Amino acid sequence: MALIVQKFGGSSVANAERVFNVAKIITETYSAGNDVVVVVSAQGDTTDDMLAKAAEINPNASKREMDVYLACGEQMSMSLLAMAIERLGFPVISLTGWQAGIKTTSHHSSARIVRIDPERIRNELDKKNIVIVAGFQGINKFESITTLGRGGSDTTAVALAASLKASLCQIYTDVDGIYSADPRIIKDAVKLDEIPYDDMLELASLGAKVLHNRSVEMAKRYHINLEVLSSFSRKPGTIVKEVVTNMEKLHVSGIAKDDNVVRIALTGIKDEPGRAYRVFALLSRNSINVDIILQSIGRGDVKDISFTICKGDKEKAVEVLNANKLDLGFEELHVSDSLVKVSVVGAGMIDNPGIAATMFEALYEAEINIHMISTSEIKVSVLIENQYADQAMQVIHRKFFNLV
Amino acid sequence: MALIVQKFGGSSVANAERVFNVAKIITETYSAGNDVVVVVSAQGDTTDDMLAKAAEINPNASKREMDVYLACGEQMSMSLLAMAIERLGFPVISLTGWQAGIKTTSHHSSARIVRIDPERIRNELDKKNIVIVAGFQGINKFESITTLGRGGSDTTAVALAASLKASLCQIYTDVDGIYSADPRIIKDAVKLDEIPYDDMLELASLGAKVLHNRSVEMAKRYHINLEVLSSFSRKPGTIVKEVVTNMEKLHVSGIAKDDNVVRIALTGIKDEPGRAYRVFALLSRNSINVDIILQSIGRGDVKDISFTICKGDKEKAVEVLNANKLDLGFEELHVSDSLVKVSVVGAGMIDNPGIAATMFEALYEAEINIHMISTSEIKVSVLIENQYADQAMQVIHRKFFNLV
Repeated sequence: MALIVQKFGGSSVANAERVFNVAKIITETYSAGNDVVVVVSAQGDTTDDMLAKAAEINPNASKREMDVYLACGEQMSMSLLAMAIERLGFPVISLTGWQAGIKTTSHHSSARIVRIDPERIRNELDKKNIVIVAGFQGINKFESITTLGRGGSDTTAVALAASLKASLCQIYTDVDGIYSADPRIIKDAVKLDEIPYDDMLELASLGAKVLHNRSVEMAKRYHINLEVLSSFSRKPGTIVKEVVTNMEKLHVSGIAKDDNVVRIALTGIKDEPGRAYRVFALLSRNSINVDIILQSIGRGDVKDISFTICKGDKEKAVEVLNANKLDLGFEELHVSDSLVKVSVVGAGMIDNPGIAATMFEALYEAEINIHMISTSEIKVSVLIENQYADQAMQVIHRKFFNLV
Repeated sequence: MALIVQKFGGSSVANAERVFNVAKIITETYSAGNDVVVVVSAQGDTTDDMLAKAAEINPNASKREMDVYLACGEQMSMSLLAMAIERLGFPVISLTGWQAGIKTTSHHSSARIVRIDPERIRNELDKKNIVIVAGFQGINKFESITTLGRGGSDTTAVALAASLKASLCQIYTDVDGIYSADPRIIKDAVKLDEIPYDDMLELASLGAKVLHNRSVEMAKRYHINLEVLSSFSRKPGTIVKEVVTNMEKLHVSGIAKDDNVVRIALTGIKDEPGRAYRVFALLSRNSINVDIILQSIGRGDVKDISFTICKGDKEKAVEVLNANKLDLGFEELHVSDSLVKVSVVGAGMIDNPGIAATMFEALYEAEINIHMISTSEIKVSVLIENQYADQAMQVIHRKFFNLV
């Protein structure tokens, strides 16, 4: 008998029919002899509807009161799910964040879980109850209700799995697993059976959007096996874990595209020590994160520095750079927002220098020009023109995955 | 500086505009130098909408899960009200039942308040916060959420007023006070400035529907002055209290009509001891409450027994009485549901034997026949034909209130 934590997102419980579908998944897991702890999000568009209603009253409401209000979304969802499970004839109890012992920091709207007191949940499991816990919420040391911010319900599920030493944490969503590339772009994309935590982290930050990094990081820290699967298809999903068993076969986990990229180039900077430092110190002081950095080899006594930032930071970056033009000592500032970043991710990469070469070969054969390159232990990223993005994904994916 | 508890019903906070209207009443009370604790119900039709949604999932859901679900109605309402008060620029905090220290019995859906731990509320008042508390809810000793059933939010308000030793508990509703009769029937009905607890209890049970008896009983027990007033009109309401100051002037608080009445008559019962006992013991065993009882003077060796019950108990009463016809020994059973009960209520009545006579005189002048009479220390009730009910209310009200 195992203890399994199952998390269901808002689309999985959006209406009565889907609530019963989820209730069946839960009760089948329970009937197979497992202890089951369920984490549930607010139904469908509930949270958006609530945000709109609150904005009508006060668009600048305190985060404390917004948390009190929004926490009801999960509380309603969990009690309705419990009622559905009752109707199927199974013993069940629902618990809010505070009832489930979820203690958080006091950062309303983006609290972090400090600890979980699992006594109440353990008692209910001992009584053979299925336990439904409201995702996304907890209480701080003042006994005020807090919410966990983006990815909050996934985080609740992984934290409960860690606290209860669950053998598996299943994240049910509307996709049936992690793919080698976005299936909407790459028709041949393959569903992965397994993926290492680190690759998942890279894929999530590159826009795979299935799991929030925060929950993957926590799963890695506490060695929780995470399964991403669909509540609609009822097929096995993808397991995110420490070591992938078929490592020899698979060097690359996936190909990802990130179009939230702006490249800024500063030309004619004097080729002397400390120039690059001044640029990036300035950006850092203004809370602008820099991703890929490329510095040209000096020509004469000047050089160029290029780097990428998020689209949201573009105006601010241009403003502060121009305001400090004299101090930084550059000639011209060029902004390019027609670029995307395409990355190949794989924990096996470090032992296999051919990965980058294979990627570049694919792009060369397709005559796609590479603007910038960045490599790390588990990924190779290239910056290319937006218009070639999907084609680049196709050719790179074919090179790596259709060899198999 | 006084501590005032204000309670607002669902219609008072039904939409954003009304929420701000209520927020203004609260902040004006606060600005006048008072500590303010507010109890709020779920918005408008929220609870009905939620009941319908839960019934779709499971019409026989456990009361425990229904309580978890329904408690969200007040939690959402209180946080929206807090946001409105924030927008007006006042310090405010909302507290759920458990955060406000409201401990109840475990009777889900109809829990009773066992005690209130007011420490948290006191702390927030010390910090000069306006405190908004969710009505209708608490937690039991297992830390499960409970709801208080009908009249629950009024009960929360009075219990908080008692626990915090408030100087006044204001119940804001959609009527502007307690009237000497239903203003929809009696155009001349006068709003009372004050009314004793006992009269209010009689009027509530007779169908005045403004305050639930449970909250009036609690107010009486803890000597809390209750004010019933409208959140729309902003006029002084009616104060429910122990001793009414203008007692000499006013002998009668009000005239009430109750049409939830069925009379059952058993004829030809043997005129010997124990016959009446058998009838009412049988009804009591079947949980049928009997109101007025009338036993005729024996004629020969038989007598008749008549009594009134609620309409909802009619079929059950007829069934059990007929099933025991031989044992009870009656000849015929007559059911009459064309009757209403009209009552004159007034704490001064016991010192004023003329009240009943005045009432009967009014009915005699209007040629309305009286079927049954019942008197107590604070009321005189008569049973008359339904069709004369409004006319009876008019003539009795005129006799008592237009003398002034």
